Amino acid sequence: MDKINIEPLAHAYKLLNPGAVVLISVGDGKADNLYSVTWNMPARRDPGMVAILSGKRHYSFPFIEKTGEFGVNIPHAGIAEAVLGCGRTTGSRVQDKFKRFGLTRLSAQKIKAPLVNEAVGNLECRVCQVIDLGYSALLIAQILAARAAPEHFRNGEWCFENGLKLLHHLGGDRFAVSEREIDVQLPQG
Amino acid sequence: MDKINIEPLAHAYKLLNPGAVVLISVGDGKADNLYSVTWNMPARRDPGMVAILSGKRHYSFPFIEKTGEFGVNIPHAGIAEAVLGCGRTTGSRVQDKFKRFGLTRLSAQKIKAPLVNEAVGNLECRVCQVIDLGYSALLIAQILAARAAPEHFRNGEWCFENGLKLLHHLGGDRFAVSEREIDVQLPQG
Repeated sequence: MDKINIEPLAHAYKLLNPGAVVLISVGDGKADNLYSVTWNMPARRDPGMVAILSGKRHYSFPFIEKTGEFGVNIPHAGIAEAVLGCGRTTGSRVQDKFKRFGLTRLSAQKIKAPLVNEAVGNLECRVCQVIDLGYSALLIAQILAARAAPEHFRNGEWCFENGLKLLHHLGGDRFAVSEREIDVQLPQG
Repeated sequence: MDKINIEPLAHAYKLLNPGAVVLISVGDGKADNLYSVTWNMPARRDPGMVAILSGKRHYSFPFIEKTGEFGVNIPHAGIAEAVLGCGRTTGSRVQDKFKRFGLTRLSAQKIKAPLVNEAVGNLECRVCQVIDLGYSALLIAQILAARAAPEHFRNGEWCFENGLKLLHHLGGDRFAVSEREIDVQLPQG
């Protein structure tokens, strides 16, 4: 999927506004991995920041501890099986999740981790703060670079007229899609 | 909207899984307020926890500082105008946002803040941790009680067959809806 850089970068947080499930990509230049994260949100507009929950015992966590970086890849419904698969498998058993689930690597501009070419949007992030929540850690990270498919996200705005279907995780193997905008008017009075 | 308690309470975090915009309710027994929060997510399963971003200069923030509590109300598309209105107005000028936007108060079980009767689900939360992010604060809070409309959320699962439309904030006055589930199969091999 051909994508272009999001400019200004202060628009990039909006990729996470709708609350879609994301694929987190990690890598140190030698090995890499992918996993799906339902619990994600923007954390600041400018400089753009994100917050994600990440299991401390998961295979990918040491990559983030080592590099301080991760990619956030926003999928569309066309790669929902890969999202489910990346969430249901561990990198300790599936060495190449990209290959296993039919995805291809897109080189990042600012981080070592690869990005997901088939995603609608990609954020490159550097960890600023780690909040220990026991089993998992809440990672707050700055957005260093961002790009998106211009047919679905342009001028800092999502657009649905070209068949975009964003993927929302309900739990387990259940997903909903958002595929249309509704008209909402500010009440008068 | 008639709702029933979510049991076990460990299922309650799933109300936030799809990434819908929420209405946060605050109150100290004398005054109350409502505001919309796009940046929210679950933070733990059991005990259930949530994370939300909240502007430190906003009218509602002192209520949370004082009481250590807030309600999370998950709207459906039928009250989208109220969600937009609550986000676009300040409690310092609109004393009763419930009345102003056609919403009614539902008494909480564990906190002083009122809940939104017209929401599909309601969480009652107590703040555990405040992470300062400059202009805003990231609040991590435990879910003390939760209820949901059984026609849309039952046995810990969202269901769309009764016309549920969840509201996802794109930015500004733009919203998308998720209103159907898609079938996603784990890839074989």
